Amino acid sequence: MPSISKKGLQMPPSPIRKLVPYAEAAKKRGTHVIHLNIGQPDIKTPDIALDAVRNHNIEVLAYSMTEGSETYRQKIANYYAKNDISVNSSDIIVTTGGSEALSFVMGSIMDGDDEIIIPEPFYANYNGFATAAGVKVVPIVSSIEDNFALPPIAEFEKLITPNTKAILICNPGNPTGYLYSKEEIQQLANLVKKHDLFLIADEVYREFTYDGREHYSVLQETGLENHAIMVDSVSKRYSMCGARIGCLVSKNKEVIQTALKFAQARLSPPTFAQIASEAALETPDSYFNEVISEYVERRDILVSELQKIEGVKVAVPQGAFYCVVELPVANSDDFAQWLLEHFEVNGKTVMVAPAAGFYATPGLGTNQIRIAYVLNKEELVQAVQILGEALKTYHNS
Amino acid sequence: MPSISKKGLQMPPSPIRKLVPYAEAAKKRGTHVIHLNIGQPDIKTPDIALDAVRNHNIEVLAYSMTEGSETYRQKIANYYAKNDISVNSSDIIVTTGGSEALSFVMGSIMDGDDEIIIPEPFYANYNGFATAAGVKVVPIVSSIEDNFALPPIAEFEKLITPNTKAILICNPGNPTGYLYSKEEIQQLANLVKKHDLFLIADEVYREFTYDGREHYSVLQETGLENHAIMVDSVSKRYSMCGARIGCLVSKNKEVIQTALKFAQARLSPPTFAQIASEAALETPDSYFNEVISEYVERRDILVSELQKIEGVKVAVPQGAFYCVVELPVANSDDFAQWLLEHFEVNGKTVMVAPAAGFYATPGLGTNQIRIAYVLNKEELVQAVQILGEALKTYHNS
Repeated sequence: MPSISKKGLQMPPSPIRKLVPYAEAAKKRGTHVIHLNIGQPDIKTPDIALDAVRNHNIEVLAYSMTEGSETYRQKIANYYAKNDISVNSSDIIVTTGGSEALSFVMGSIMDGDDEIIIPEPFYANYNGFATAAGVKVVPIVSSIEDNFALPPIAEFEKLITPNTKAILICNPGNPTGYLYSKEEIQQLANLVKKHDLFLIADEVYREFTYDGREHYSVLQETGLENHAIMVDSVSKRYSMCGARIGCLVSKNKEVIQTALKFAQARLSPPTFAQIASEAALETPDSYFNEVISEYVERRDILVSELQKIEGVKVAVPQGAFYCVVELPVANSDDFAQWLLEHFEVNGKTVMVAPAAGFYATPGLGTNQIRIAYVLNKEELVQAVQILGEALKTYHNS
Repeated sequence: MPSISKKGLQMPPSPIRKLVPYAEAAKKRGTHVIHLNIGQPDIKTPDIALDAVRNHNIEVLAYSMTEGSETYRQKIANYYAKNDISVNSSDIIVTTGGSEALSFVMGSIMDGDDEIIIPEPFYANYNGFATAAGVKVVPIVSSIEDNFALPPIAEFEKLITPNTKAILICNPGNPTGYLYSKEEIQQLANLVKKHDLFLIADEVYREFTYDGREHYSVLQETGLENHAIMVDSVSKRYSMCGARIGCLVSKNKEVIQTALKFAQARLSPPTFAQIASEAALETPDSYFNEVISEYVERRDILVSELQKIEGVKVAVPQGAFYCVVELPVANSDDFAQWLLEHFEVNGKTVMVAPAAGFYATPGLGTNQIRIAYVLNKEELVQAVQILGEALKTYHNS
């Protein structure tokens, strides 16, 4: 039998993949599983986007342009202009989700054995894209004690080698909820200019910033034009995870021209999803105001409820809709499995994402979990109560 | 300025990319350009697929399952059963187009410097996926004199090295239109079993076979279960190129489990497109009967018209909707550009795909073009008349 690839063996499984059979078994037993483990919001997709697809008048569902339709890219540029980001439609390639944008970026700027520095904990799939591209992830630890702020620049410099090609940040962060300040972005900007690196920013949670804090994009930083590459997506912004539309944005023409060759190989992004995404840009501000208020309330109640549990430490998120929680357990993988296998309160239990999968350094995050606050407040409160009860029972079991 | 990757520099541009600005300039001058250069059929998408999307009742456009929804994969398995291909839903991963399926396959079975043997001319984007995966394409020449039949097995064996991991075929072929016989597939089956290789078949044109010939899938061959990997797509079958839905099918569990890890990194295939694709499986047989008749008529008129032109050689396609045509010119790249830049008949000209981009061996195919017969018969006849006139003028210019 022919063997699969070394790369295939190295591809990391999803951090929650091991738990899925236990969740399914729990559901078969009749247990209600509250899902805090995935960033799938319960927020309604804007009608304007859903209706645009209902009202399509397509007769031949043809390829779109490789880089996305001109009208859609023009409207994306207008959206960025409203967010104080000045780009043209030719600086934008529409992709099949932010995922594809990241794959194109890694392929365009890195060869095998090149290194990319990423503050950890980070979005677990960065590991997958890096492995697929044959690229080495060099993690730099950010700490729950500092709310997962940017590690000191001196620590970054220690990790830079001749093979370093880029620094990748997620801002605001999944799983940390940390929002980098303008000053932090500027520190990174100086660093990448000094060492001639790319600065890649995953800004898919741009709108989700709280407590009056403002998002500062890598594309707003003057002088960073040749270094900055931004990855974006409609998934979270408009609760359209299933559309699979994102984009890659850079003022660096060489990067765009190279990424376009990767894009040409896969022909075009999905047409129906582009129709929905183009229409979604007309979503009224009131939609976001309501959504942001809802997430702030969810965060506040989640954090305050978690803080009531003895031995639990929470990093207070300033953006996105995740938080990393430290638990008084030795192994959050085991705990998460035990929750699904052996525990319930009034027929309900909770599924969380063990945090070790969000770290590249072995042994880190083993007492942490990621919670996605994508459910309504009552369910969140219930979920935290179940967690609290579970910790008591788990310690005695 | 940080540099892009070597891989990015090596990524081949689309074979027609260089021509696009000339086509745009021609259109600006008011010239009507007849597009024979791309496999975008003019065939109407089945209403049942388009209506399913019109009638969607989605409120939250959520991620689908990474491997595609269970109901859709079950229905795909039923479709294969009707085509004498026996697979289960668990042998199938739904992908974002056949393109993504090929990327997952290459990543799952090959590492950097591994080799894949492909009969040339071949679908140009195979080069792109191979370059992106860091894999080496080893071409084996098939000839227009033999109608692009399978090269002798002895020629394959000469190319097999310790680094060879797979043979890739497109059946029926883009750009050749060649349909491999059962005997040819069995020769390849014996070869890959003997040398412990994978046999990857791109079967996206399965339905498009002519003159009573029947398609024989690599998945129909007994004893090939661990070697055979099939790539499929709804793009051509239902004239749904813009959906971007395909799949990867194999009875080899290790391949499926590995490909699933690549699939998990990109989360899920597009939801609206899966709705359309699932509904498309209910397309009545009458639709295909009409479409096949139409393509046969187009092929017949195209080939007979081309044969009237002095010095032109045509490989008669038995499947798909392409044919490779040898022209009495030294450089079909130049000729294709000249057609757009300097030639028209009654305000019309033709865009063709120069064939060199479908070969990996430098210097091959330079006097050939690929024609996609995806237009109505009148336009095809007009296009060939323009080509005939153009060849006369080109030689005198």
